[in-house]
Amino acid sequence: MNKLVELFDTTLRDGTQGEGISLTVRDKIQICHKLDEFGIDIIEGGWPGSNPRDAEFFEAVKNEKFNHTKLCAFGSTARYPNKIEEDPNLQALLKAETPYVSIFGKTWKFHSEKSLGLTEDENAELIYNSISFLKSKGVIVIFDAEHFFDGFKDDEKFAMKMLKAAEKACAETIVLCDTNGGSLPSDIIYAIQKVKKEIKTPLGIHAHNDGDLAVANSLIAIENGAVHVQGTINGVGERCGNANLVSIIPNLLLKMNYKTKKEINLNTLTLLSHSISEMMNLNPNSRAPFVGKSAFAHKGGIHVSAVLKDSKMYEHINPKLVGNLQRVLVSDLSGQSNIKYKAKEFGVDIDETTEFSKKLVSKIKQLEFQGYQFDGAEASFELILMNEKNEFSPYFKTIDSKVYTFFDYEEHKQAEAVLKIEVNGEIEHTAAEGDGPVNALDNALRKALLRFYPELNETKLVDYKVRVLDEKEATAAKVRVLIESSDGKETWTTVGVSTNIIEASWQALCDGLNYKLYKLSKEKKLTA
Amino acid sequence: MNKLVELFDTTLRDGTQGEGISLTVRDKIQICHKLDEFGIDIIEGGWPGSNPRDAEFFEAVKNEKFNHTKLCAFGSTARYPNKIEEDPNLQALLKAETPYVSIFGKTWKFHSEKSLGLTEDENAELIYNSISFLKSKGVIVIFDAEHFFDGFKDDEKFAMKMLKAAEKACAETIVLCDTNGGSLPSDIIYAIQKVKKEIKTPLGIHAHNDGDLAVANSLIAIENGAVHVQGTINGVGERCGNANLVSIIPNLLLKMNYKTKKEINLNTLTLLSHSISEMMNLNPNSRAPFVGKSAFAHKGGIHVSAVLKDSKMYEHINPKLVGNLQRVLVSDLSGQSNIKYKAKEFGVDIDETTEFSKKLVSKIKQLEFQGYQFDGAEASFELILMNEKNEFSPYFKTIDSKVYTFFDYEEHKQAEAVLKIEVNGEIEHTAAEGDGPVNALDNALRKALLRFYPELNETKLVDYKVRVLDEKEATAAKVRVLIESSDGKETWTTVGVSTNIIEASWQALCDGLNYKLYKLSKEKKLTA
Repeated sequence: MNKLVELFDTTLRDGTQGEGISLTVRDKIQICHKLDEFGIDIIEGGWPGSNPRDAEFFEAVKNEKFNHTKLCAFGSTARYPNKIEEDPNLQALLKAETPYVSIFGKTWKFHSEKSLGLTEDENAELIYNSISFLKSKGVIVIFDAEHFFDGFKDDEKFAMKMLKAAEKACAETIVLCDTNGGSLPSDIIYAIQKVKKEIKTPLGIHAHNDGDLAVANSLIAIENGAVHVQGTINGVGERCGNANLVSIIPNLLLKMNYKTKKEINLNTLTLLSHSISEMMNLNPNSRAPFVGKSAFAHKGGIHVSAVLKDSKMYEHINPKLVGNLQRVLVSDLSGQSNIKYKAKEFGVDIDETTEFSKKLVSKIKQLEFQGYQFDGAEASFELILMNEKNEFSPYFKTIDSKVYTFFDYEEHKQAEAVLKIEVNGEIEHTAAEGDGPVNALDNALRKALLRFYPELNETKLVDYKVRVLDEKEATAAKVRVLIESSDGKETWTTVGVSTNIIEASWQALCDGLNYKLYKLSKEKKLTA
Repeated sequence: MNKLVELFDTTLRDGTQGEGISLTVRDKIQICHKLDEFGIDIIEGGWPGSNPRDAEFFEAVKNEKFNHTKLCAFGSTARYPNKIEEDPNLQALLKAETPYVSIFGKTWKFHSEKSLGLTEDENAELIYNSISFLKSKGVIVIFDAEHFFDGFKDDEKFAMKMLKAAEKACAETIVLCDTNGGSLPSDIIYAIQKVKKEIKTPLGIHAHNDGDLAVANSLIAIENGAVHVQGTINGVGERCGNANLVSIIPNLLLKMNYKTKKEINLNTLTLLSHSISEMMNLNPNSRAPFVGKSAFAHKGGIHVSAVLKDSKMYEHINPKLVGNLQRVLVSDLSGQSNIKYKAKEFGVDIDETTEFSKKLVSKIKQLEFQGYQFDGAEASFELILMNEKNEFSPYFKTIDSKVYTFFDYEEHKQAEAVLKIEVNGEIEHTAAEGDGPVNALDNALRKALLRFYPELNETKLVDYKVRVLDEKEATAAKVRVLIESSDGKETWTTVGVSTNIIEASWQALCDGLNYKLYKLSKEKKLTA
């Protein structure tokens, strides 16, 4: 029978302590719903006693309904020597009205003495009293044994005494925290095996990634008896981040024969990970295990030809199990097989037409030399391929483009694009303003094209990225622009390269619209 | 006595199979010198039999001198049924003239049968003969047991037979490869303990990160007897990447009492990691353990106040040991202590002036709300702080700025900036062209200012980054521009935010030059 593990997500609490991460109350509520849908058991939503945004979140979330997940508010033990019943932090926790409350207490003597100035007995009493008080108010209490592994290494007796105080106060779960994130797997095994002998309360693990070992430490703790695991989506969090639930969960379910309280649709994992990155305005890590764009991407020629025979050869799991895709990359390390595979994705069989295949490879390599990259811009790749096959030619031609921006110290601003394009021999000469030069160009182009192609109305730009290619050249360097477009159903990415950021944007913009028109014509042919 | 471990770097071979990674021969040679300086024992430089760039590298590297490191060429066993002496892949390896050669052979029955179509005996013979032949030519042979852990799980006997063939042929080291990267720590322990009983040849570990466990699996293999570890700088590599030497090495040296053949200056680790990211044109991972910009960055108010008492409280190691820095972040999670700490870094004590401190915090929060972020733009933060303190005011004023770009279908291009600025009541009205609009502005500004401030001559822009803030708004979204400037000695980063990318760049550009002038005036005051 599969063993059970409880999933505790702290993306909204510990996760937001990561550098550059900031969520609105609305973002936080949206994330709660995503986590609920996915099957997380407990969501730690914030620290209501520490900042007004978290207190506001707990107010707002009271109106939300969840299918499975339970909310948890985070805080510390009471502050010594406050009267427990009047401690403002514990009051804030109760005011959150969540079924679960997690509180951390010091289990490292060094912290207890240096940070709180408490003796062993005073600290144990503080833990016991804080938990008992909260329990008397009817909440379920999770005790986070802060710095447990460091504390256990330093003074086993002290650390164990604090766990026993939490156990005596009937904490629901005692979570062993590797707060500084520097413990080794062997430290985890040693400590948890000893704890198991003396503590009967269910144990949890809370790991940080400072030693690049958070996922391993979490899995090892579970193998050694922990039944509750804390982490964040994508491993965001203070310093190097928390243990990454996006890696932990598929390892548990697919490889270690564990099961979760609620059955998890693992094939939504990639979507969950990406959508939460988006909400945090983070670039998704393309190399992320299981869910990264590159996680099942094959580049070496020998891997590619093997994967074409049987994908198990170079894939540890079937990417579909986690909602990801197998990809084959086009680069100068590519053998024939990569190009062949890639072209096949777009319905082009280049087996026999060897001359054509050589020409295509040489064209791609030349563009890569200029700074283009097709790893992430598959729509542009497809247009080049189809252009070489004479199955696509651009739907419009830019006669010329002028962009003008102005701003002054009184904050007057202007961005204007003047555009002359040609469609089927007809000239359209128009102009538009915008919030910036690229937006002005985008507006002018749309204005010019809608007359000819009203079907472009539904196409929008959804992401815009810029990468400087040769940093040594600073502002004179070439830039590569990636533009992601969407028609509300699908998204596709196109690329442009130039020393002029506006021209590079222009190329990607044109490819984006050409791709939509090309797709439509292909669909028409199919239905015709 | 500390145990010894051999460091084998495959950044230039397996690393370049990662998505988006491409290195010129010149880059590769520069990286070799960095790795040599750092103390890597063996560098796997490429696969000369697989692509012309790698063959060219091995030709070029023959002229280079290294202090400690030895080069290694990578390839496969001979191709069955080629005559061993005539196998083109083995010939290419010998032609590389490296002291070490690494060859991989199949140890998973499934691969041997499916990919090569060989029986157990044929495959064992191929391994034995390939190694023996290379050894007879005087090279040291490292045998990579491809897919060893998967193969061992599938058919122990088959896998062990292949290792024994390599041992019989006197391979110098037998490297157990987790090629698909999906093994768990428990798989590694089980297999290596069994192998140790039958194989006396020194063992190595080659792990991939598909399960997010590559670093843990490598360390665990070493704890269980491996004496040679393979990995890449920053963990680049096929799919999710290889085991990250940048995490493995400090764990071994600082926490596990291992030593390396050559003594390593661990405090150059951060620099090594960042400079190789730069050469690969990758954004360094800010959350990278040990070397990331955020690895010792504290944001939670409680962590910050504790770290101010004793940094050991929330840091697993002293960041100086790996050449990194402690940082304290300014954000809306910040307590007073973050702002206080940050201001103190810039010599401003805000203890007593509470009114000033409140005003500063509110100003910073307001700017953050608009999209500014000071985590990564500390020079802009310092200018705001000093401006509030009346110790800095801008050295010039922009009366107005006009930027004009043009391009047409015949590839005529122009980018021109017309600028009117005021310095000490004097107006400068000038214009300049550039490779793009930002470069034109940069050129015009430099031209206008040099008359007043010739000391700006040495300041250059070294990096330029753009981030779209609200992707839903697409090209009308706000963008945040980060510009890194350098005077050849120091670098500093400044920020600008606007819906107009040119204006955002302009703000960051102006801050960058203002910061240099402000620094110079501060130095003058100090020496006066």
